[in-house]
Order: sequence, then C-alpha cells, then structure tokens
Amino acid sequence: MPTGHTAERVAVDAVSNDGRESAGLYLDRIRRDVDTALARFMDEQLSESVDESLPPLAEVVSRFVTGGKRLRPMFCVCGWAAAGGDVATPAAFRVGAALELFHAFALIHDDVMDASYYRRGKPTVHRMLAMRNDVPNDGTSADRFGENAAILAGDVCLVWSDMLLHDSGVSPQRLSDSRRLINTMRTEIVAGQYLDIDTSENDNEAELSRAWRVVRYKTAAYTVTRPLQIGAALAGGDESLLRACDAYGCPLGEAFQLRDDLLGVFGRPSVTGKSALDDLRDGKRTVLVALARQRATPAQNEVLRSLHGDPELDEAGADRVREIFQETGARSAVEEMIVTRRELALDALEQAPVTEQARRALRELADSAAHREF
Amino acid sequence: MPTGHTAERVAVDAVSNDGRESAGLYLDRIRRDVDTALARFMDEQLSESVDESLPPLAEVVSRFVTGGKRLRPMFCVCGWAAAGGDVATPAAFRVGAALELFHAFALIHDDVMDASYYRRGKPTVHRMLAMRNDVPNDGTSADRFGENAAILAGDVCLVWSDMLLHDSGVSPQRLSDSRRLINTMRTEIVAGQYLDIDTSENDNEAELSRAWRVVRYKTAAYTVTRPLQIGAALAGGDESLLRACDAYGCPLGEAFQLRDDLLGVFGRPSVTGKSALDDLRDGKRTVLVALARQRATPAQNEVLRSLHGDPELDEAGADRVREIFQETGARSAVEEMIVTRRELALDALEQAPVTEQARRALRELADSAAHREF
Repeated sequence: MPTGHTAERVAVDAVSNDGRESAGLYLDRIRRDVDTALARFMDEQLSESVDESLPPLAEVVSRFVTGGKRLRPMFCVCGWAAAGGDVATPAAFRVGAALELFHAFALIHDDVMDASYYRRGKPTVHRMLAMRNDVPNDGTSADRFGENAAILAGDVCLVWSDMLLHDSGVSPQRLSDSRRLINTMRTEIVAGQYLDIDTSENDNEAELSRAWRVVRYKTAAYTVTRPLQIGAALAGGDESLLRACDAYGCPLGEAFQLRDDLLGVFGRPSVTGKSALDDLRDGKRTVLVALARQRATPAQNEVLRSLHGDPELDEAGADRVREIFQETGARSAVEEMIVTRRELALDALEQAPVTEQARRALRELADSAAHREF
Repeated sequence: MPTGHTAERVAVDAVSNDGRESAGLYLDRIRRDVDTALARFMDEQLSESVDESLPPLAEVVSRFVTGGKRLRPMFCVCGWAAAGGDVATPAAFRVGAALELFHAFALIHDDVMDASYYRRGKPTVHRMLAMRNDVPNDGTSADRFGENAAILAGDVCLVWSDMLLHDSGVSPQRLSDSRRLINTMRTEIVAGQYLDIDTSENDNEAELSRAWRVVRYKTAAYTVTRPLQIGAALAGGDESLLRACDAYGCPLGEAFQLRDDLLGVFGRPSVTGKSALDDLRDGKRTVLVALARQRATPAQNEVLRSLHGDPELDEAGADRVREIFQETGARSAVEEMIVTRRELALDALEQAPVTEQARRALRELADSAAHREF
C-alpha cells in the first residue's frame, strides 16, 4: 500500500476499476467521506463554540444532518472530478459537506414554514427543539420556542456552511471566482421557496408554469446543476464545462423532482420515510397536480378542489385524489416526463467535456433518478 | 475641483478640517454614502432578479433598509479608516452596506420570533408581507404567510449581504483573510438571539450573568467591535489594531445596549420610534431588569414577577415597574455603568494605533452612546 493512502484516497481508487459496481462503490465512498467531513466539522462546533448557548443548537443540527441522501454533495464532488479536480484531497468532501449544511438550512426553515412534523423519518428540528427538557411544558409556548429556535438553527447552518466552505482548503481566488455561483444558488432556493408559499390564485395554465418554476429553482438548479457547477468551478472548470453541467443537470434535476412528487403521493411511507398524506394535505402544488387539474373533468376538479389541501384528509380521500391523478393520465404523463428527461440528461452527459470517472458516476446518479424508491 | 472628485470622495474631504462640526459632517457623509451603496444594490436586485418571485421580497426589504441609524456601517467605515484604508473608494461604503443588509437579516428574523408589530416606527417586515394585496385576507393565513415570507426575506438578506461584500471591490485575499471574523460575527448574533429566546428559569445571579452575555453578543460585539474589526481587517489592519478595536468596542457596545435598554423603558415613543411598553410586555431580560430583581424587596419582586412580561400590561402597570427600577437604584446604576463604559472606551481610543481622522469620528460615536435619545 503506497504511503499517503488515507481514508480520503480510497474514493478515487475505487473507480480505477471498471463497470457499474465499482462506480456504485464510488458514490458510496463519496457519501461516507462527506459524512466524515460533516461530522468532524459539527464536532468542532460543539467543542469550540463562541458561547455555551450554541451547543444545544449544534446538537440538534448534528443529529439532523446525519440523515439525508447526500445528493448535493455527490453531484458537487462529481463536478469537482469532472473538472479534473483531485478527489483524493479532503477539500472536495469538505465543499460537499458545506452544501449539505446549506441544505440543512433550507430544510429546517422549510419545515418551520410548512409546520411539518417529520423529516427523514424523525421529528423535524423545530419539534425536536420544542421537546427539549428545559422548556416550559405548556404546549403553545414550547411550540413557539421550537419554531423560533429552529429559525436560528437554520440561520446558523447557513453561517456554518459558509465557514466550512471557506475552510475547505480551496484557494481564496478559486473561492472568490465561484462565489457568484454559490450566491446564485442561495438566492434561487429562496425564490423557489417563496413561489412555494405564495398562495395567490392562478388559472390552470399559470399554475402549471409556476409549478415548473418551483421545480427549476427548488430542485433542478438546487439539487443537481448548481452543486455540479460549484464543484466544477471550485476545481477550476471553465465556462464550457459549466454549460455542460447545466445541459445534464437541468433535465435530470427536473426528473428528480418529478419522481419526488410521485413518491410523495404514491410512495410507501416505510421506504420514503414520510407520510404519503403530507403532500396532499399540504396541497403541494406540483406539476403532477397542475397536469391533473388541466385534464380533469369539472366533476373531478370539484373533488380535487375539496380534497387537495384539506389538512384533515384521510386515507380514503387520498385514494380518491390518487385515482384522479391516474384517471386523468397525469401520473403516466409525469412518468413519461421522467424517462424523457433522464434520456436528455444521459445524452448531454455523453457529449460533456468531463473526465471518464465523473461520467461513470454521473451516469449512475441519472439512473437513480428514474428508479429510486426513497 | 480635481478630477475623480466623485460623491464617494466627499466623505474624506469633510474631515480634512478640524473640530467637532466637520467630524459630525463626516459621520453624516458615511451614512449618506452607505445609503447610496445600499440603494444601488437593492435596485439591482429588483431589476436583475433570478426569478419574478423575488421582487416582492426585494421591495419590502428595500423599504425596510431605508430606515435605521447605520451604526454598524459607521463603525465599519471607521475601522477601515483606522487601518489607513482609503475612504475615498466605494469599497468601504459597500462593505458598510453589506453589514447593514446583515443587520436587516437579524432584525427581520428577530421580529418574527418576537411577533413584533413595529420596527423603526413602521410595521415590521412580516406584517408588511401579511398585508400584501394578493394574499387571501382571512387573518390567520395572512399572518402565517407574512411570517413565512419574512423568514425568507431574512434569509435572502443574509445572502445579499454576502453578495454585496463579495462584490465590494475588496481583493479576494483580503476578503478571505477577514472571512473568519465575519463568520464569527454571524455566529455570535445567533448565539445572542438564542440566549434571548431561551426562557429557561435562572436564579438572580445567573440571570444577571446571562443578561450580560446577551449584551455582549447581541450588541457589544455585533454593533461595535465586529464591524470595526471587519472594516479594519478588510483594509489590511493587523492584530494589534484588531485588539484595540475590541478594547474600545467592548465597553462602548455595552454602553450602547444599556442605553437602549433604558430607552426601551423610559424613552419617549415619539423619539425612539417604538412603544415604551413593548420591552416590558415582552419581559425583555435586560441588565436593568436583572439588577432590579437582585435589589428588590420581596414585595417589589412580587410586583415585577406579575407585571414584567405581562402581554396586557397597561401604562399604569408600566409606571409601577418603572418606579421599581428607580426605587431599587437599578436605573441609576445602569446610568453610571454607561458613563464608566464610555470613559473606558475613550481611554482605549486615545491609546489605539489608529489614524487621526478615525479617532475623531470614533470619539464622536462614543459621545452619542452616552447622550442619544433615539
């Protein structure tokens, strides 16, 4: 075994073999190395805090970030590798971990806004904070404390994300060159969230166009394109590579979100880790829903209007809504869209000026968007 | 008039004269040039937004940031000048404006957490957003929309603050060197806010120590020391200057917060722009309150327990609480603390390795902490 063969080196060695299996290993290794970087950073925040008040927040955040699929870090490290960046250095994984902390910021605030109870099969951060022992146990004020503390937990995740990014080991010049892209991602997610909470009424046409915009900002750009581009830019990728990231990332990111929307309604809770009622009760305005509305008969639209977004919706009502998604052909249309988009992404990937190890990993990530059940 | 004599140049010319009046002019000019930089940046966000959903948030934020005393930008530009930085370049004011946007982030979230109605004599951001025309006008959901949108408005202010900082014109290396300090400030404000919302009970001793910690993070560091140090570091100031910023900033920042606490209880609303009942109704746990509790007779403590933090407190009740602050000597103790701290700050300033123009401006800022009525 050569010297310098550290834990971080292993990820790159795994792909020096050929074929799907070693590429699969590759993604697993990215995930593991990102987890390690993230855990190490959170331990530092727990032990070197500016004030003794922060550890309670750091603890909750630490527990929260142990979950998650690590999609954004994986795309980010792939972008880094695509630009020929050395994935044997810890910097790639630290940058990936920084994106995961950014994601924690977005999710924590999102859950406060949606008043969600569960995330990743566990209580949401605001609920964990509300249940803290030393909070007066009189319902409302504990809930309020939980929400307020979660706003702060989200805020500090955004700050920590920036700290980790800055301390990643990437040169100041590279970080500076990539900061516009990073801030664009940060702005886009806020725009997507705002679109999501804005409840002003639209006609069916506008509703579909808005649903697509949410997909674009909240997922396509945020989950795939931007992490890829940020990884690529931090490793010195040029404009043509950044465009290729978009050509692959945009359709693939859409495919991911469309899959997510289907899973939110038709997925098995034991697999997805969340109730298949939540999206329907929240009245989440997805492309699936907008398509169903457009295609529905007046009678079906009447049912959708009364059941979709009903916070008390039961399983029978949910089944009625699911039937309409089927009967209108909205579900199969979305399934087709996923297939088409995955193919578009794969075609773009074949043309892309990326390293072969990155191409292999990105191919596998594209497959998971079409087939995933989680 | 020499060429290159732009609007930004004027600020430095004003201090080439002597005496208080020109120094006063100097602070006014900093304020004006920061306002200009901030307004220009916000106009860009309104016109070059990543999505049409952002302008509503940008509009509300634009209106919100037109208010404020600009204390942090003023300290920041003074820090810049203290390090010998050229205050004739726009970079100093852009950095100051970036701190003001950071402050907007902190205030907007703070107001959501406190469910405050007014800020700077106007409705708070979450209330402005709740009152937007196209929101369904049924009370609860409008309020909820306002809070959620304000969480996002705060988030985007933090992102914009970073964008403006990055595009300020300061070199990547300087920005990189200063980023640890910037992220420390960002973390400290979260720690201070968390201390502020944590309602767990303490004995009187612990209560006083906690009140001081809130003062330290929420104001002393955040309003004075960190902005000064950030300005100094961005202009290339060394470690000894950063320590001097702390020696001056720490007592002065405490004086500012103590003054603020007094104004929150004894100030005239027409001058402070906020009700003199809010702090008392919120049960704000200030040094003033902690001192009064420590010194109060059992009977007085009984009154404080029942009235301080009562959301329905009326003027008669508030007067009763104010009397206890007087009778216990807590008010005059706080007044004395302000005087002592201002003197400590001024002594430190005389020793500090700063430029003369910075010393003059910082002297004037110290005076305003002791005398201000706003």
